Amino acid sequence: MMDGSSQKYPACAPITKGADIPADVYGARASAIQGLVEHGFPVPKAWAISCETVKQFTAKGFVVDFDLEDLFEDTHLLSVRSSAQDRAWGGPETLLNIGINAKKAKSLAKTLGAKTAYSLFYKFITDYAVMVARLDGEDFDLILEEAEAAGETDYEHAVDRALGFYHAEMDAPFPDCPVKQLRHVLRSLATSWNGPSAKILRAARGAPADADLGLIVQRMALGVGKGGYGSGVAQFVSRTRGTKTAHGRYLSQSQGREAVAEKSAATFLAKDERGTSLEEEYPELFKQLTDLGEQVRRVLKNDMKLEFTVEDDYIWLLDATPAERNGRAAVEIAVRLAEDGLISKEEALMSIAPTSLNESLHPQVSRKAKVEIIASGIGASPGAATGKIVFTAAAALASEARGDACILVRVETGPDDIRGMHSAKGILTERGGITSHAAVVARGLGLPCVVGAENSKIDMRKREVVLSDGEVLSAGDVITLVGDTGEVLRGAPKLVEPDLGGAILEFMSWADEFRTLSVRGNADTPADFRMARAFGVDGIGLVRTEHMFFDADRITVMRELIFADTEDGRRDALGLLLPMQRDDFVEMFTLMGDLPVCIRLLDPPLHEFLPSSRDEMQALAENMDLPLSKVIARIEDLQEFNPMLGTRGVRLGITAPAIYEMQARAIFEAAALVEKKNGLKVKPEIMIPLVSARREVDLIKARVDVMATEVEAQTNIEVQYEIGVMVETPRAALRANNIAETCSFLSFGTNDLTQMTYGLSRDDAGRFMSVYVNNDVFPEDPFHRLDEEGVGELMEIAVERARNAKPSIKLGLCGEHGGDSASVKFCHSLGLDYVSCSAFRTPIAKLAAAQAALAQKAREQQKN
Amino acid sequence: MMDGSSQKYPACAPITKGADIPADVYGARASAIQGLVEHGFPVPKAWAISCETVKQFTAKGFVVDFDLEDLFEDTHLLSVRSSAQDRAWGGPETLLNIGINAKKAKSLAKTLGAKTAYSLFYKFITDYAVMVARLDGEDFDLILEEAEAAGETDYEHAVDRALGFYHAEMDAPFPDCPVKQLRHVLRSLATSWNGPSAKILRAARGAPADADLGLIVQRMALGVGKGGYGSGVAQFVSRTRGTKTAHGRYLSQSQGREAVAEKSAATFLAKDERGTSLEEEYPELFKQLTDLGEQVRRVLKNDMKLEFTVEDDYIWLLDATPAERNGRAAVEIAVRLAEDGLISKEEALMSIAPTSLNESLHPQVSRKAKVEIIASGIGASPGAATGKIVFTAAAALASEARGDACILVRVETGPDDIRGMHSAKGILTERGGITSHAAVVARGLGLPCVVGAENSKIDMRKREVVLSDGEVLSAGDVITLVGDTGEVLRGAPKLVEPDLGGAILEFMSWADEFRTLSVRGNADTPADFRMARAFGVDGIGLVRTEHMFFDADRITVMRELIFADTEDGRRDALGLLLPMQRDDFVEMFTLMGDLPVCIRLLDPPLHEFLPSSRDEMQALAENMDLPLSKVIARIEDLQEFNPMLGTRGVRLGITAPAIYEMQARAIFEAAALVEKKNGLKVKPEIMIPLVSARREVDLIKARVDVMATEVEAQTNIEVQYEIGVMVETPRAALRANNIAETCSFLSFGTNDLTQMTYGLSRDDAGRFMSVYVNNDVFPEDPFHRLDEEGVGELMEIAVERARNAKPSIKLGLCGEHGGDSASVKFCHSLGLDYVSCSAFRTPIAKLAAAQAALAQKAREQQKN
Repeated sequence: MMDGSSQKYPACAPITKGADIPADVYGARASAIQGLVEHGFPVPKAWAISCETVKQFTAKGFVVDFDLEDLFEDTHLLSVRSSAQDRAWGGPETLLNIGINAKKAKSLAKTLGAKTAYSLFYKFITDYAVMVARLDGEDFDLILEEAEAAGETDYEHAVDRALGFYHAEMDAPFPDCPVKQLRHVLRSLATSWNGPSAKILRAARGAPADADLGLIVQRMALGVGKGGYGSGVAQFVSRTRGTKTAHGRYLSQSQGREAVAEKSAATFLAKDERGTSLEEEYPELFKQLTDLGEQVRRVLKNDMKLEFTVEDDYIWLLDATPAERNGRAAVEIAVRLAEDGLISKEEALMSIAPTSLNESLHPQVSRKAKVEIIASGIGASPGAATGKIVFTAAAALASEARGDACILVRVETGPDDIRGMHSAKGILTERGGITSHAAVVARGLGLPCVVGAENSKIDMRKREVVLSDGEVLSAGDVITLVGDTGEVLRGAPKLVEPDLGGAILEFMSWADEFRTLSVRGNADTPADFRMARAFGVDGIGLVRTEHMFFDADRITVMRELIFADTEDGRRDALGLLLPMQRDDFVEMFTLMGDLPVCIRLLDPPLHEFLPSSRDEMQALAENMDLPLSKVIARIEDLQEFNPMLGTRGVRLGITAPAIYEMQARAIFEAAALVEKKNGLKVKPEIMIPLVSARREVDLIKARVDVMATEVEAQTNIEVQYEIGVMVETPRAALRANNIAETCSFLSFGTNDLTQMTYGLSRDDAGRFMSVYVNNDVFPEDPFHRLDEEGVGELMEIAVERARNAKPSIKLGLCGEHGGDSASVKFCHSLGLDYVSCSAFRTPIAKLAAAQAALAQKAREQQKN
Repeated sequence: MMDGSSQKYPACAPITKGADIPADVYGARASAIQGLVEHGFPVPKAWAISCETVKQFTAKGFVVDFDLEDLFEDTHLLSVRSSAQDRAWGGPETLLNIGINAKKAKSLAKTLGAKTAYSLFYKFITDYAVMVARLDGEDFDLILEEAEAAGETDYEHAVDRALGFYHAEMDAPFPDCPVKQLRHVLRSLATSWNGPSAKILRAARGAPADADLGLIVQRMALGVGKGGYGSGVAQFVSRTRGTKTAHGRYLSQSQGREAVAEKSAATFLAKDERGTSLEEEYPELFKQLTDLGEQVRRVLKNDMKLEFTVEDDYIWLLDATPAERNGRAAVEIAVRLAEDGLISKEEALMSIAPTSLNESLHPQVSRKAKVEIIASGIGASPGAATGKIVFTAAAALASEARGDACILVRVETGPDDIRGMHSAKGILTERGGITSHAAVVARGLGLPCVVGAENSKIDMRKREVVLSDGEVLSAGDVITLVGDTGEVLRGAPKLVEPDLGGAILEFMSWADEFRTLSVRGNADTPADFRMARAFGVDGIGLVRTEHMFFDADRITVMRELIFADTEDGRRDALGLLLPMQRDDFVEMFTLMGDLPVCIRLLDPPLHEFLPSSRDEMQALAENMDLPLSKVIARIEDLQEFNPMLGTRGVRLGITAPAIYEMQARAIFEAAALVEKKNGLKVKPEIMIPLVSARREVDLIKARVDVMATEVEAQTNIEVQYEIGVMVETPRAALRANNIAETCSFLSFGTNDLTQMTYGLSRDDAGRFMSVYVNNDVFPEDPFHRLDEEGVGELMEIAVERARNAKPSIKLGLCGEHGGDSASVKFCHSLGLDYVSCSAFRTPIAKLAAAQAALAQKAREQQKN
């Protein structure tokens, strides 16, 4: 952190107007305090000791190459506070009232009264004994309790006894000399920064191994005395909603953090129902504080939280940090700062972490609610939901019919559960990862979802969830899922509903203004399409056509197709499916108007359409009038060792071409119908999944072209369309030049591309992912955050090759990474045309895209 | 094929000594005939008509810009033969006796006798009618039959009737003029070359779409006449063993291919048990022919098959092509040619297709045997085997105990079948691909194996194989597997045993002399190690340690490990496994001496060690004194959606580190023991499987290092070893620079790398692979032949990056591609240090490596 140039900085610099106090030299707090001083705010005189100097306190014994005595230039007491290079890293506790001794106490007693003065002295002795001499604080509490029990009215004798106790314990007198006190305090704080527990703690907060500490020495504003004295913290926006309101604590006759101590008798600031407040008790002070807050906001261009001390009705500022805020409040605050002209829209956009938008988009457990975590898994779809446990799709439907909120709990979900998932408020599965069936469907529906809760066992036969401690939950028990964190909570803690009004809409419109990357939605049903439109997407980047077949009436036909023994049987089934698909497409095209829609041809292996439980097989056998044995045999026949790498995607399209032909026909007929009805010229994008060789594309393209010609002949309407490839095998990425030649667009399917690049099944990765992330093997779950080094490099190779082969080619990404902010930024840097993700995640993608565009602009301006 | 420079070649060139008759201008046969003429062999005078000219016969109508009359410069009859640019492409049939007409026949009758002369005329009329005029040959046969039935002694009248019939049918007289005959024959042959069926036929033989045909016009050596006349074919090596022997057919009073016609009365050449022979009947002629054969061999530097005609006891050569030979004979012939100084060792090596070595290494079905193919699958391990069907490993053991050869037939195989596989002569499975369990184990054992025979259904309950036509095979029925082609034959056709003696050993020693790429063997057990040594490998490139756990006594301990609930239980099981592994390693290290041995740490997911059938689960439960339900629950718990992409390889090593620690300890203890006993310093290579990130390597390395230190402390022997990574995920290939920094070698596991690059499970690919290969989607099954464009590019990237990061890094390939010749050549071109494959495939790898080195040398010499 320190380089040669820092040599020009003094070891101990007075924090004055015009002083140069950079955070990397003196720490962040010292720098912030200088900011307050710079703008003329009332701050007690302070000095910053540089990180380099503090390091020398321990490295070279205890050398202080500046005069400590100077800091006691008058009779003020001093405080010492930590000033790490980053506030988030924390630091040792503040030590107050340095410089007090018998003589000083006696002198203070005259102005403050004996009790207050000796109380300060006693506090200092205790703090010093604990923090510097490492004695046990309880011994000193005991002395005080005894004094109080003995009815002593001030602490003068208690101080004597404490000094005596200290002398006995340390075999040395308590230091009387203020300079000596200060010296030892400084050394002690420097030493504690290097203690092992401090290191672990700050590493957990993201500090690097060589994180440095600066220190601040500051004159005490006492906060105690006769009249208007006290201390507190204040911010002027709501932490949870971002609205303007005075929020904080004030305690008369207090110092430091006493007002926010757990059992403090502090009052609130603004008037509310809970009792007394600063506003009512000291309206003048409240007014002064509020004005100060507004001034600080205007000067620092942010809503701040102030630490202050009141000395004789005069407010001293000790510190100012950005006001606490949750995600929703952050947006509100940023928008108001921009509207007030304090920051630009660009700065507002850059100030919000994209993921924090989740708090605006989904219900959240109230911060004040007491929660009990009874199980945990992978948070697969954000938001919180409460409901009664149900174990089957049927029970979920029944529960919805009764108006009862329910949580669908399954070992894993499959196509048969879709309708039940629609009826539930949330989904919990024992198995699966963040791209399992449950997770993908839940995100599409915007339902909270926790998957891979492997520490709980679900016994479907007994309809029970057995928690890791043996406790058993049954149907009807109420639980709450937190889809952001993967937690399962007991009962129904208070939830805060999302609020999409006001600031967030304004904020998103700014993101739209600056981003250059299109953001499309993934949508599988007309309902999804409506949702996507509501979220203002730039088009649909992925229609998983197979999801259209999972509805109860359709899956039956799909199964008939799979079981058909004859060409006639297959044709009949396809004949039934064709109008269903066509009608869906008509509705989708109509909803999207002239926005692009990218339709992926059937992707999953056929066995995904078949039942897995004996009961369902039995039902299917009866339904189709087949012996059960034949149904079982066919299902077994279609089993695969590694279905993810089996007969699916384009492999189905080539080995069973009638299905893709039906789908292409349905798309073209729908486009023609929409044109006829609405005069809307639809140009669908047709996407071929799981391609690994160019000839796969050529073969399918030829068949699709034939369908187009047939539909043209039949409808007399010109059919326009684009054919593209979902790049989800490493080979397709490597061969992108070759493949690009024969198609109009490529869309990275980074879920599968990640699976194949790592050799990692997303459904099975849950077993070891946490061990891997905890051991830093993977910095992040690569299914959450795009792995730029591996998967990302394949994308880079593909982008370069595809654009070389065909500069006009359209490039996108569809997959869960499209809703992850870091991944979206990476896509921007690759120069993709769009990303596509679940509608509910598009705000995150849009903000990330805007930030990426702004960052790029800033870099380019810096270059020029 | 033709360029401007060919303009210098005449349209019709006399084939004379010194003439320039290149194969690409005049076709391969014309060129070969010129070779015979050049060396002074007796060849009837001939002319070559260039391909370009033949093309004009059809392209521009029928322009002949040379004088046909010149070819009839004397009274000889002529033949016209095809001469395609490559012999393999075939061509139209030869037409003989052109130029005969009533006048000529009458004149010939004087020397040959009327019957012979008119018979020639009649033959020509028929051939011309069929091949040129496209009449039906049966009509002419009928006329002849009637003449014979009428007791006509010569064919003079028959000729008249045939000419009359021709006139009537064609509404034009049969051409009398020899030049006109020749002209029409030439045009007809040129036209038939461009017919659709000819095109399909030659495309199937590998001809390009623009394949050209040249023609040869040659004076007839008649082969009929009074005295020593006849024709035949001869070669002087055995087709099946390559030994010196006269082999062929001779028919007195015959022409063209009459001697080899199906129902010909031709005699054999050499004396044998089957009746008369040329050697006995015409010893002089036989001697002349044999001498001629030897002269041709010496001059053409190859054993040739001769087509000859005997005219008045004088032998004319009509053609010479390389003698027919199977793979075994080819090696024998090549070695003898080199030993005779006719070709160099290098030329001998280049002359043999590496895969043809299989015929020397494994039993083959005799070419003469009548076979009935009753089922087919994927040929997964070469060679042929006959035996009685057994359905279980136990039955295979029992069968072996009785001395009965058996074929183990399973739906698929697993660890429990290993001992049964050892007892069987061959393996047949309904499911799986060429890298399935059955295939890999069979190749390791050198057993013929057919997998993925999906057109047959195996009913394990009934112990039956149901063939595609409904026929049922039961236990005890005799079948024969052909592991090269994937065929299943009925019964026990005659097999030819391999012969590893003599030429093949010499030949392989030449390959060793020239190759620069090391060839190692994959070996899992001491028995495999002995086999690998017998094959003269340069080391062991892959020890799959898990295979050591599949023995009956060991798998029990392995299962105890998996089921252990407590740390103690796990330690107990590992304590039992440690000495087993150590003893194996001791034996392996001792066997390999100072050759390198690369040991892969445990790779498969744990569930591969668990039983799959209910019976076996029951047995396991009893064995371990556990309730069956618990056994089933644990097995279900370990199930994975995509096991190939699940918790295996290094992921096991990181999540359950005790296993890798045990393995490392066993390796080091074994090395120390071997050093103590034999004074042999072993430096094992330890390979980590399924790596996708460098930190995986670092974590395992740290643990292995600890084990080394412990064993050193315990044995007082310095432990030396190398740690390397199996590159089998695309990510490991991309990150090879990063990974190379931390290890000593990389070995490409191209089986898995292919799976992941294509997103293709080798066990499931069988369902669609044939459709894919037939539709040219994949030019070859990428599990057979390394895909150079995709997988190969990843290897290229990895090689470059790894060598950049660490020039000293050792690079290899272990996997099935190491036994495929094209893939081995690719590895040579990449600059790998070694390839490794099953011992039985190493001869192929060695030859391919030698050829690659020689080809490279030739290219480099050409450059300089």
